[in-house]
Amino acid sequence: MSTNLVLHQTHHTLADFDTIAVYLQENLKGNSLHLFPELFLTGYPLQDLCLQRAFIDAYSDHKTRIDQWLKSLSKNDKWRGLVPGLEYELETSGLPRKIENVVFEAIPGEGLKKLYTKRLLPNYDIFDEQKYFTPGNGNCFYDFHGSLIALHICEDMWGSSFHQLDPCDLMYREMKEKNLPVKMLINLSASPFDVTKKRKRMERARALSLKFKCPFLYLNRVGGEDEILFDGSSFIVSGQNDSLVMKSFERDVQTVELDKLQGRYDFEPVFHPENTWEGLFSPQLETKERPAELRSWSDDECEDVLQSLKFGLQEYARKSGFKKFLVALSGGLDSALVLAIVKLALNPGQEVEAVYMPSIHSASLSTQLCEDMCRRIKVPLRHLPIKFLHSTVKNTFTQTFPDKFEGLTDENVQSRLRGTLLYTRSNQTGAMVINTSNKSELAVGYSTQYGDSVGALSLLGDLYKTEVYRLARYVNARYGEPIPEGVIDRGPSAELRQNQLDQDSLPPYGRLDPMLEGILSYRYGKKELSGLGFTEEEIMKTLNLYLKSEYKRAQFCPILKIKAKSFGFGYRIPISKNLKYHF
Amino acid sequence: MSTNLVLHQTHHTLADFDTIAVYLQENLKGNSLHLFPELFLTGYPLQDLCLQRAFIDAYSDHKTRIDQWLKSLSKNDKWRGLVPGLEYELETSGLPRKIENVVFEAIPGEGLKKLYTKRLLPNYDIFDEQKYFTPGNGNCFYDFHGSLIALHICEDMWGSSFHQLDPCDLMYREMKEKNLPVKMLINLSASPFDVTKKRKRMERARALSLKFKCPFLYLNRVGGEDEILFDGSSFIVSGQNDSLVMKSFERDVQTVELDKLQGRYDFEPVFHPENTWEGLFSPQLETKERPAELRSWSDDECEDVLQSLKFGLQEYARKSGFKKFLVALSGGLDSALVLAIVKLALNPGQEVEAVYMPSIHSASLSTQLCEDMCRRIKVPLRHLPIKFLHSTVKNTFTQTFPDKFEGLTDENVQSRLRGTLLYTRSNQTGAMVINTSNKSELAVGYSTQYGDSVGALSLLGDLYKTEVYRLARYVNARYGEPIPEGVIDRGPSAELRQNQLDQDSLPPYGRLDPMLEGILSYRYGKKELSGLGFTEEEIMKTLNLYLKSEYKRAQFCPILKIKAKSFGFGYRIPISKNLKYHF
Repeated sequence: MSTNLVLHQTHHTLADFDTIAVYLQENLKGNSLHLFPELFLTGYPLQDLCLQRAFIDAYSDHKTRIDQWLKSLSKNDKWRGLVPGLEYELETSGLPRKIENVVFEAIPGEGLKKLYTKRLLPNYDIFDEQKYFTPGNGNCFYDFHGSLIALHICEDMWGSSFHQLDPCDLMYREMKEKNLPVKMLINLSASPFDVTKKRKRMERARALSLKFKCPFLYLNRVGGEDEILFDGSSFIVSGQNDSLVMKSFERDVQTVELDKLQGRYDFEPVFHPENTWEGLFSPQLETKERPAELRSWSDDECEDVLQSLKFGLQEYARKSGFKKFLVALSGGLDSALVLAIVKLALNPGQEVEAVYMPSIHSASLSTQLCEDMCRRIKVPLRHLPIKFLHSTVKNTFTQTFPDKFEGLTDENVQSRLRGTLLYTRSNQTGAMVINTSNKSELAVGYSTQYGDSVGALSLLGDLYKTEVYRLARYVNARYGEPIPEGVIDRGPSAELRQNQLDQDSLPPYGRLDPMLEGILSYRYGKKELSGLGFTEEEIMKTLNLYLKSEYKRAQFCPILKIKAKSFGFGYRIPISKNLKYHF
Repeated sequence: MSTNLVLHQTHHTLADFDTIAVYLQENLKGNSLHLFPELFLTGYPLQDLCLQRAFIDAYSDHKTRIDQWLKSLSKNDKWRGLVPGLEYELETSGLPRKIENVVFEAIPGEGLKKLYTKRLLPNYDIFDEQKYFTPGNGNCFYDFHGSLIALHICEDMWGSSFHQLDPCDLMYREMKEKNLPVKMLINLSASPFDVTKKRKRMERARALSLKFKCPFLYLNRVGGEDEILFDGSSFIVSGQNDSLVMKSFERDVQTVELDKLQGRYDFEPVFHPENTWEGLFSPQLETKERPAELRSWSDDECEDVLQSLKFGLQEYARKSGFKKFLVALSGGLDSALVLAIVKLALNPGQEVEAVYMPSIHSASLSTQLCEDMCRRIKVPLRHLPIKFLHSTVKNTFTQTFPDKFEGLTDENVQSRLRGTLLYTRSNQTGAMVINTSNKSELAVGYSTQYGDSVGALSLLGDLYKTEVYRLARYVNARYGEPIPEGVIDRGPSAELRQNQLDQDSLPPYGRLDPMLEGILSYRYGKKELSGLGFTEEEIMKTLNLYLKSEYKRAQFCPILKIKAKSFGFGYRIPISKNLKYHF
């Protein structure tokens, strides 16, 4: 009998138990082995949800329902399912004494049977699995009608010297000791996207495939959970060959015949230190070279980033019930790129509106560029000048507080008035306000709290300004030039005072961005930045701005995460601190 | 020779290495055993700071400096220090391969010697220790000039069935097996405050003291790290006796003679299930009774809460360099209590200003009450009416957007204008804006994002409205009635439309608050709340409001944590979700 594998790269909402159960009932059939991504039965990540009584009760009913359905089937059915989910052990009080992240075997006529418990529980950056789950301690060699499969879950493939645990190496040793005829490695994942992740996963899988001398099947879920994006992008590598590559950010189902996979295994496996737990835990600390410049994205990477941002936006909107979007357009690049992405992301029945709120300092060029852009992409543009409001606030305010009203005070009030007006419009129409900040700006606090930093979701909060330029040029080249060239060419400015330019307050972005990347991803301090050739003055300015602006990031909206290190849930630096100890 | 113990209940800033080293050099002397709290050498919690290269370098220099100083001393000195800190193992790349949370012995003439590695690493709620640290796997019986001490660190005393690890029980078994003459248990802690924590720590310590039949010494640090407050409150229990109780929220140093501690050990130890890892991990799930009402705080608890809020405010202000505070006073209770607490917290050289921003819907009673309060406590009150600004915004806005401008749209704009004006004043004076929201309001989203929810720090964000009443009455009784009775007696209102009362939108607080406590601390859903006697209508209204307002909490400022479960870093619920799956 041939061994058919069906890869279900699914896309379900967290805890959508009914839909998940129906999906299983409709799809488990034939003579195949059906594969599902990590925690298919619940969705991922659940965080504290997996401790809530209502969740535990509903999940228990859900599992029972599937189990009963399986028991009602004929034992003669040849198909099997590898169905990941949670396994609870409860105290009599209802307290979870133990929660495991497992794979169940779905057996017709028998039910759900626990096969394997995840051994390496990720607990760095955004991951909290050791908070909730208890690790397993055995390998799993699963026999499907005579084909032996080395089964494991997500992080198990990465190994950790920090945790002194490499589950794939333990599988390998057992395979060698017992001389097991393993025909395939299967990894069931819920692995978040970042712009380098596809490559890293495939490199690691290829190394393991060459080591085991059999194909490596990698199945990942699709979904967007606030800031965290799951891209799918499942694949099979057979040594040096790529046997299957599945869609990104889209549900996909593929069938393959195990025996027909053509592999080439006459190569030495290469395990790059970057592709390990530590590479993910302390991003890029192992990298030998110290780049003084940011690596520029390829067109493929730009396309991946664009798709991820569109997908993340739609996932948030879908689950929160938004059909309308609202973007404050300024005539600058960040808001223009955000508007272009939202427009490209729109589904039928959705709409986006742009609002332009010029102040006394806004150049007439800004007006022209906003109008030009909205004409190009056919988005309604509304003009709401804040000049009069700005002066009225100033007059009213100084009647009570005659102290000086200039500099930052005067700049911030314009930005906060815009925030207020934007949300007033959002209250009127029910539109979702899309934030327009970028990562450079967030890192140095170059924005006004409750002003231009408002929004339900940030699309560009994980892109440095130089990456905003790169993506804008890509979008223009690939998608019919939605952004007027004038927007890309003009010098960046907040337009909160006369002739203001970002460069008056910040190092040029070509210098600033690599310093920030050093600080965030390489965990560099003064010494290492100095070693890269940056001047004492640039370094101290950047570090000071960065360290002082933690309080702004702490109240920022969720940022779609497209890097190993973003300013989101996985970024954990104290807010209040004495700066002198932190260089 | 008598065995003197010196308990250094210290209060240092995170990573303030110079001060910490000097403290050791000045205080390690005599014939005593000097004790310091958990991670004394660095401070706690460090989060990602312990992965930054600058931190690792500076810490390494710091340890070397102390080590060298110790080596320079005479071997004849009789004192020893138990000095907790970090122990790193680094890869050649600078990547930490292993970080341990340890106790060093400071030995004159020899240096720092690692004695013990923490075994049970807390990883629930706000704790992330398994993200950073590798656990130890042995007990420590430390011999100080013939007195044997069972030494352990913080969480080790709580035990966990979830992690199948109870370090104190393992110590007990080894003690019994080897018949060790243990004279004292010493726990060196960095344990966050909550209103029940003093009692829980002491109950657990007493049970262990009775089990081991020797005194239990508990030493805790003092400090405020954003939302997390360390209260000190160190103590020694000798069976049923309390041998020492140290100050709360204040540095304190005490010396005791071990042999003079009078213990009473003729009682059975009582290990309450609430006082365990699980009790902390899934707060109160073990509790048998299901309270339909919140327990009212005792006067002692009110005083503890008041001290914790004053302390947390001052810690944040000190580290961020604020000397001025700014509170928006509304005539309602929350802002009045906040202002009273800030006033009580003021140090010499600090000042607080109140701003009253009435709108067209503000009652004249509100004005009178604000004036009365500020007269009582001698705080300058500034009047900044927003009537004219409100109508100007409305006129300007509706010129561009003629859609209806009423209901929430009209209410929120008043609140956001106030947020803007308050921060304009903060820009002018450099004052720290203190948030005035309470926990009930946060839980049901009864506030305006970027409006009344603004602020650098929330004092009342972990107090339900009924607890705000309780604390206000306590403050009034104990501290010369700063709050006019009229503020406490009037019905709560946001005053954003005519005759608005909280009770029009929410269940009465006496009903709402226990439901919220059930949801948050007991992880109750519809079923359990119904079992407490709440009506279907109340429950669904509360759950709906709670589930829909996650996005507001996600952008809220740090909340001083005074409960096991607060809306801060330890609260982890997805923002965007399909509500129907979450009851």
